[in-house]
Amino acid sequence: MAIFDDFVSQYGIVKKIDAFGYLDYLKNNPDAPRKHGKVVLVTADTPLKASRGEGKTTTTIALIDALRKRGIDATAVLRQPSMGITAAGSKGGASGGGKASLTHPEIIDWGLCGEMGAIEAAQNLLVSFAEKAVDEGKLDTVLVPRVSEVPSRSLRSIAVDYGKGNVAEKMVLTPTCELMQIVVFSRSMDEISERVGKMIAGTLEGKPVTFADLTDMWRITNILTDAVKPALTETVNGSPVYVHGGPFANVSVGIPTLVSVEMACARHDVVIVEAGYGADAGAQKWLDIASREYGAQWPSAALVVTRATTWRDDPDRQWRYPFHVNRLEKLGIPTFPLINLWEGEDDQVPALRETAAELNFRSPIIGNLFRDGGDGLTDQLDDFVTALESSGVPGAQASHKGEDVVDTVRWIAANAYGVPAERVVFKPGFEESLAEARELVAGVGRDLNDFAVCAVKSPATMTDDDTAPAEERTVTLKKVEVRAGSGVVQVNLTKSLTTPMPKIV
Amino acid sequence: MAIFDDFVSQYGIVKKIDAFGYLDYLKNNPDAPRKHGKVVLVTADTPLKASRGEGKTTTTIALIDALRKRGIDATAVLRQPSMGITAAGSKGGASGGGKASLTHPEIIDWGLCGEMGAIEAAQNLLVSFAEKAVDEGKLDTVLVPRVSEVPSRSLRSIAVDYGKGNVAEKMVLTPTCELMQIVVFSRSMDEISERVGKMIAGTLEGKPVTFADLTDMWRITNILTDAVKPALTETVNGSPVYVHGGPFANVSVGIPTLVSVEMACARHDVVIVEAGYGADAGAQKWLDIASREYGAQWPSAALVVTRATTWRDDPDRQWRYPFHVNRLEKLGIPTFPLINLWEGEDDQVPALRETAAELNFRSPIIGNLFRDGGDGLTDQLDDFVTALESSGVPGAQASHKGEDVVDTVRWIAANAYGVPAERVVFKPGFEESLAEARELVAGVGRDLNDFAVCAVKSPATMTDDDTAPAEERTVTLKKVEVRAGSGVVQVNLTKSLTTPMPKIV
Repeated sequence: MAIFDDFVSQYGIVKKIDAFGYLDYLKNNPDAPRKHGKVVLVTADTPLKASRGEGKTTTTIALIDALRKRGIDATAVLRQPSMGITAAGSKGGASGGGKASLTHPEIIDWGLCGEMGAIEAAQNLLVSFAEKAVDEGKLDTVLVPRVSEVPSRSLRSIAVDYGKGNVAEKMVLTPTCELMQIVVFSRSMDEISERVGKMIAGTLEGKPVTFADLTDMWRITNILTDAVKPALTETVNGSPVYVHGGPFANVSVGIPTLVSVEMACARHDVVIVEAGYGADAGAQKWLDIASREYGAQWPSAALVVTRATTWRDDPDRQWRYPFHVNRLEKLGIPTFPLINLWEGEDDQVPALRETAAELNFRSPIIGNLFRDGGDGLTDQLDDFVTALESSGVPGAQASHKGEDVVDTVRWIAANAYGVPAERVVFKPGFEESLAEARELVAGVGRDLNDFAVCAVKSPATMTDDDTAPAEERTVTLKKVEVRAGSGVVQVNLTKSLTTPMPKIV
Repeated sequence: MAIFDDFVSQYGIVKKIDAFGYLDYLKNNPDAPRKHGKVVLVTADTPLKASRGEGKTTTTIALIDALRKRGIDATAVLRQPSMGITAAGSKGGASGGGKASLTHPEIIDWGLCGEMGAIEAAQNLLVSFAEKAVDEGKLDTVLVPRVSEVPSRSLRSIAVDYGKGNVAEKMVLTPTCELMQIVVFSRSMDEISERVGKMIAGTLEGKPVTFADLTDMWRITNILTDAVKPALTETVNGSPVYVHGGPFANVSVGIPTLVSVEMACARHDVVIVEAGYGADAGAQKWLDIASREYGAQWPSAALVVTRATTWRDDPDRQWRYPFHVNRLEKLGIPTFPLINLWEGEDDQVPALRETAAELNFRSPIIGNLFRDGGDGLTDQLDDFVTALESSGVPGAQASHKGEDVVDTVRWIAANAYGVPAERVVFKPGFEESLAEARELVAGVGRDLNDFAVCAVKSPATMTDDDTAPAEERTVTLKKVEVRAGSGVVQVNLTKSLTTPMPKIV
């Protein structure tokens, strides 16, 4: 595929790909050689703690190494880790571990090629333009938050122009911001411009004002020139891995960019897409936001990763893992359990297989992937490969566009969290918040029901109390926030973290 | 020089150079092939307005193109433009103009390879660690400011933890921060670690606490991995140009990194170093901070750029241009006037030459460099080249280390601004501020008199009132700020801008 090389540039020890250009080329040259790869979703059990990963990235890396050893042209698409969180010590990196690692985690985990820094600068520049609009009387309330890649808990609530205006503001983590969502969803720089133009900067006498009325889009797109290009790196075994787009599926969409997955599908037969934290966050968002609302490819198979301890050690939360596996199966996605063993857990394999059989799971894939890498998986993939080979590339799935936002949330609660509509309850203030959001977007001639619903919640819980008996579990809706540029309505549920600023460790 | 290539990586359309590694290699291999280039300082007249450049970058680019046309191996070292300021519309880019341009200003002006973003994240991470120290009772006052690449006037004064702690803070522009100074001065990652460790995070019961006591340095150095590497780009005529280090010689050191200049001197015969705003800011800082205190090479020649209008149109400020030229000559640096013409000014050439002759200047170099590029200069460089060829590579110059800070400021005022010691006056509060600074650094076992003095002032003025008669001009000292990591004491003079946040345009 020599054509592809025209869209690739070396950036230090990684390559960056002009995915917009390449996909555009394929569109204009329908006879150009390309593949039509299948998407495999790697998602996970709901973690017991937000800071504890089940090993999705490690699994993803081991899996493509193992598939490639079997002669299958597999690749993976990962989200760029948050350097701020890694540097703060709140979380390890996200470039796998042990034998299932990317080469050069010192680059992947530590800012890659400046993508996050560029998105941070561009989002903050929008805030500066909103401030200018306030000075010029074009705006009286700014609605777009500042961002910081580095967590700082005191920034959750700030006042700017302190001592004079005392304007209250909040600051959010860069990967969670609207501009990151726009980069994740957009398929061209023109789409980015158009979406940034639709972002609501704030209000003037209660009426929304968009950035299209306030600034020139080249200021933003110039900053994003390189940030929109996915990075191509590789595993320690030489398998190709694309990295692009921000993490944090608890408070944002948290999926890789759509173009990075589309490009990977044009170049490989199997494309593993990592979507976490748990299936209730990452998989839900890939399926219900990326696929249903933004045209991303529906998975041809899925793996749900858990640790032996996550699955078994907390009886009150044990229902979650089979729930996730069964939910994906019910959607017609062949779904395999994958248990990522830690040191000293090898003797648990027979018991884990037994439990999986009792639960009528497909053949479980079990291994210490940190220690053994892909070698620990190669021989266990027969059923997975057969299922993948016999499944097609699924077509478009039903969208919720036009449905009432609350109905869509109820549908998510029923399908992704197992809580029926009648137990989705409103916290006082929720309806007012929803009505305000409806009015705000109506003010720019749009309908909130056309927005994609993005659940904002704790990564470690699916309901108000996951330890309650199934028939008593509830989901409380707290408030909504509009992101008119990315086309998303963020709905805060249960224990939501609207401004997550992890502790410095 | 094939060895050099081992230290070069492609980063998109520019190259990045592991300057630390290359200079280390040269140190350990004294017989390796290398050059010992001469430094030429390109500086400027004091601008009439801060936002108005005289054309130093354009001149620098035209000059190396012209010198190379004459068969001289010349290069230039530029500071990285501030993307934030360019994006905000407060200033054009800084990659030259017209025929005297760098290729790809869309990269140079718009974030290069993420260097500024990385420095921003690292400096802000230090603030987060200082906050953590407050939470842990190791600190009660944070002294290190947050930074933003994008200007926002309301950030000059903020309160964090608003509604609870209401902790007053300020935010400064990324290029002006202490960490940028550390990157500019340091010759190895170890030196960066050591200097960051010496930064004063804040105080506990009035006693200073450094970052060495609060955090692991790998968190910072990992972020800076690529940011410490100078970029190599080229002019539209193919001349090599290195870009590295932050701008803003008004409020910080504002010079390129020392390693970028040292590396350029090892590879080329003539190395043009751009130092501005005016000679009172940029040249003063190259000479008195970089050369005298940090071992940077003393210039073998200089050019002082002005526009015809800057030099001639304001009679009250006309003294400044000859003052700058003569000051540099008096230091033994052969100094050439360069007048950068704008459209419609060609007919002024004879009058400009006449004035230059009256002032006993060396042969003036005059041209419309935007329009004509290096071609406008090639034939005018005989005297400059002769002077450069006959001047040697100067040795180390006298340092002011150990001298009283106020004496050093007086010496700067006399030499760089033409104001004698007796007319350097103290604003009420200055002496208290100085005493506090002395006590603060004494608290970490150091002496403020060993710090390099960095004047903080408006780029457009040299004294309290440049339009006053020479014998009445004064310089008022306002306050001092300690930067124990970079080893700098910032002294605010005259119309200083401690937190410059240009307007969004």
